[in-house]
Amino acid sequence: MAKPTAEDTNCVIAKTASQIGEVWTLLILRNAFHGMRRFEHFEQSLGIATNILSDRLKKLCQAGILVRAKLPEDGRVYEYRLSEKGLDLYPIIVSLLHWGERWHGDETGSRLELTEKTTGLPISQMAVRNQDGQALRPQDVVPRPGPKADQSIRNLINHRRTRQS
Amino acid sequence: MAKPTAEDTNCVIAKTASQIGEVWTLLILRNAFHGMRRFEHFEQSLGIATNILSDRLKKLCQAGILVRAKLPEDGRVYEYRLSEKGLDLYPIIVSLLHWGERWHGDETGSRLELTEKTTGLPISQMAVRNQDGQALRPQDVVPRPGPKADQSIRNLINHRRTRQS
Repeated sequence: MAKPTAEDTNCVIAKTASQIGEVWTLLILRNAFHGMRRFEHFEQSLGIATNILSDRLKKLCQAGILVRAKLPEDGRVYEYRLSEKGLDLYPIIVSLLHWGERWHGDETGSRLELTEKTTGLPISQMAVRNQDGQALRPQDVVPRPGPKADQSIRNLINHRRTRQS
Repeated sequence: MAKPTAEDTNCVIAKTASQIGEVWTLLILRNAFHGMRRFEHFEQSLGIATNILSDRLKKLCQAGILVRAKLPEDGRVYEYRLSEKGLDLYPIIVSLLHWGERWHGDETGSRLELTEKTTGLPISQMAVRNQDGQALRPQDVVPRPGPKADQSIRNLINHRRTRQS
């Protein structure tokens, strides 16, 4: 029997990674969150080969993360906008930015700072938080099977319990 | 001149994605956050080929995300533990889980629920938040160049300003 590929596993993290884990794809998404929408702007900004850019934009549209639509003011020109599904990637993108700045950035300062529009204050550091907004470490969090848990999830949770008992 | 690869760009998101964006790598990290540490446990749980698992664990150690160490109680056996750098990936992993459950999960219920150990309550939905803990949408956030911003970051921010003016 052939070994399964990672995409075969019934895991939402695997499915998500297969859609957005590729490096150019993440850079396109980063730029889209900066308001970039046009093919030639992505091309110039990223220095990406035309065929790779076409391919990644097509896949992001197929995944429902970007939507391709004609410009209202010029029907010959297309733009790529984040869908609701795409906009919902924002915590992932900002988490990647914060981790990257911390572990691969320059210790003497950040390259990009994100601030709240209305106050000008920096946004909070991305963290896993409880209902009161307090940051939680992995050891503060306990997983439990949801209503749709399958055997692989139950095995993972049991692995943890066995180790800790 | 050859086109640059995505890893050549001076972007912390690209560097992060090149270290953890691969699907098996993320599944290994997911399991590590569930407390998994042993080669054979990863192998059994993921159904991953031995050579691929070896390769991914080696790369995660080289990146300083996992640390390989002898078991205190049996010096012939190694285990792989998350380093501080690895533990700091937690917001990324949980953001991926939440997004995946929402967009690739089952509408009738989740597969895995994360709860706070001390209270048993579900953790908060991952979100980009202001200093008061309120969730922010992308349009509520303004980027500004940090002290170490280079021209590519300035161009991205200017692109946004031009579009919105």
